[in-house]
Amino acid sequence: MTNKFNKNSVGIVEPKTVEIKQSLKLDCGKTLDNFSLVYETYGKLNEKKNNAILICHALSGDHHAAGYHKEDDKKPGWWDSCIGPGKPFDTNKFFIVSLNNLGGCQGSTGPNTIDKKTKKEYGPDFPIVTVKDWVNSQKLLADFLEIDIWACVIGGSLGGMQALQWSISYPNKIKNSIVVAAAAKLSAQNIAFNEVARQAIITDPDFHDGRYNNFGVIPKRGLSIARMLGHITYLSDDSMRQKFGRDLREGKLHFGYDVDFQVESYLRYQAQAFVERFDANTYLLMTKALDYFDPAEEFEGDLSKAFEKTDSKFLVISFTSDWRFSSTKSREIVKSLVKARKKVSYSEIEANQGHDAFLMPIPQYLDVLKNFMDNIN
Amino acid sequence: MTNKFNKNSVGIVEPKTVEIKQSLKLDCGKTLDNFSLVYETYGKLNEKKNNAILICHALSGDHHAAGYHKEDDKKPGWWDSCIGPGKPFDTNKFFIVSLNNLGGCQGSTGPNTIDKKTKKEYGPDFPIVTVKDWVNSQKLLADFLEIDIWACVIGGSLGGMQALQWSISYPNKIKNSIVVAAAAKLSAQNIAFNEVARQAIITDPDFHDGRYNNFGVIPKRGLSIARMLGHITYLSDDSMRQKFGRDLREGKLHFGYDVDFQVESYLRYQAQAFVERFDANTYLLMTKALDYFDPAEEFEGDLSKAFEKTDSKFLVISFTSDWRFSSTKSREIVKSLVKARKKVSYSEIEANQGHDAFLMPIPQYLDVLKNFMDNIN
Repeated sequence: MTNKFNKNSVGIVEPKTVEIKQSLKLDCGKTLDNFSLVYETYGKLNEKKNNAILICHALSGDHHAAGYHKEDDKKPGWWDSCIGPGKPFDTNKFFIVSLNNLGGCQGSTGPNTIDKKTKKEYGPDFPIVTVKDWVNSQKLLADFLEIDIWACVIGGSLGGMQALQWSISYPNKIKNSIVVAAAAKLSAQNIAFNEVARQAIITDPDFHDGRYNNFGVIPKRGLSIARMLGHITYLSDDSMRQKFGRDLREGKLHFGYDVDFQVESYLRYQAQAFVERFDANTYLLMTKALDYFDPAEEFEGDLSKAFEKTDSKFLVISFTSDWRFSSTKSREIVKSLVKARKKVSYSEIEANQGHDAFLMPIPQYLDVLKNFMDNIN
Repeated sequence: MTNKFNKNSVGIVEPKTVEIKQSLKLDCGKTLDNFSLVYETYGKLNEKKNNAILICHALSGDHHAAGYHKEDDKKPGWWDSCIGPGKPFDTNKFFIVSLNNLGGCQGSTGPNTIDKKTKKEYGPDFPIVTVKDWVNSQKLLADFLEIDIWACVIGGSLGGMQALQWSISYPNKIKNSIVVAAAAKLSAQNIAFNEVARQAIITDPDFHDGRYNNFGVIPKRGLSIARMLGHITYLSDDSMRQKFGRDLREGKLHFGYDVDFQVESYLRYQAQAFVERFDANTYLLMTKALDYFDPAEEFEGDLSKAFEKTDSKFLVISFTSDWRFSSTKSREIVKSLVKARKKVSYSEIEANQGHDAFLMPIPQYLDVLKNFMDNIN
């Protein structure tokens, strides 16, 4: 392993691609006959093949969870604080798999992929996939990797929903689930924020009913509005106060619509960076996957029934200042697991970073993760 | 008074317009040489002229606070629950003045007005006005109406900021202030939401740098996004859950981007109605007035110093579920008033309607208002 970085980095990693030839029936009724998934792995699969863990990404995440692609990369993968030798998801012990989900825009089959049947880009014709669909596609990846049972499936936010769904869809193929800053279903307010984001994208004249690539444009304005809005909901009021307060960018008000306050400048900058790297059709379908997630629905609205058959143990984590998926949401999951008489630990971490806390190297949080992982097997 | 409505309605009311010929120097440095204000009055000014109260409107409000314009109007003015014979703002006792603020779009001089100098519509050239500018313009209206001292100045949200500013700008011209669901300054999160709304409007290709009327269009998409977003922040998570939950509009998911959930349908409908009645340039400048409001700033950041000279008594009200301007914000105002040794009553009303609660006929809220008003003089 090349490692000029530091002793607990996984160093340089290389994404791999698998073409899945089995057909996958989706919740929407359509079938994908074959599809590709891009993934990275960290650590080694042991002989018994019982040390594999799966990392599921959130709305704007991807397969690149740890390490670096190039020596001169400025930033490591998105969960590098948790993945590596000696870290909570310890590569000395575990074989870690992290993929870009179906419908994504970082290499897995999604709206920007050429449909082999039509020889044209899917674009808006790419089906809306659900958390359940993702879990089914991840099962096919597990089969390819010859992993029969996951030692653990882990995710934050939308990723946490996938960890939950794994325990329901494949109750005997998962020994542990870590569900961080997630919810068993979105609230009306969550759905409303997603709807505003979608409307911003869809009503952008450069959206062209999702066929913007045919017109050589991207719906920058709409995607940028969607990201700015999302960003506000990832931060807490308190963390924004600490970070920006009412600080003026140039020390004075302009009495115009250019940037006055630091927070405006920050949001615009972040949105611009996002627009460069993320696809609008993918953004849309990710928000729908969030909205549609409601595993209790098939069980007469009783979430505990959804968990009845699972062999998984659970660790549920929430953050005090997260108002997107508040601790109340995590406690609902915990209560249902308790009612289903499953083994569950719950930790509410004191943190002022809001929903984004799940990505941060907060000592108490890393300790809780590490302690749980150290006790696996 | 024509009154086919009910005994505690002010019945049919007629807006009046005053042309103010004095010039008004604005915070931005520009001067308006003359301007018109549209206003309504309810009740009668007594001989001593000491029973006048001023109602200040919030972001999307206007002068039509009570009664009906036509016999067949479906809805009365926006604060009809509070204004009328026997109501908290009792027209049997008080002479009530309610105006459309400068920069508004319901008849007062604003972006849609023809500038007498250039003979063209102001459009985006209409200056950004501040809460202080509004209070100064309201003082000129008071002079015109021969009201030397207000018995009370009242407002909710942005209106509450005007009530506060009156007590600071004209400390001896106001005997009471009622400040409902307001804040002494916006938080970074508040500013961030406003910035997203502004960006949605400004980046709409139909905005044409604010000269959309010249092109025979309006930036519907942007204004609609802005309103949907605003609407979410006016409601509480709890009230949205009660109102919509995860109810589906047609009983099933569509796996597309049309409306699935009731809450989506509601937001789209509300936004459409708003776009028909409200001007985009006005929306922009109203959000800036909110962002810029910070009366403590001139007093070394010490709000209590801003209140030092005022003769006004205060009633401050907040609502438990308001997360746009939470009770914490109201308590900051109260603390500063206490520090300045002013007479202040504070009431936190138990209500689950979020910020919108200030417009609702919540019995405890109406009682608190009525009790305060009954004890004036």
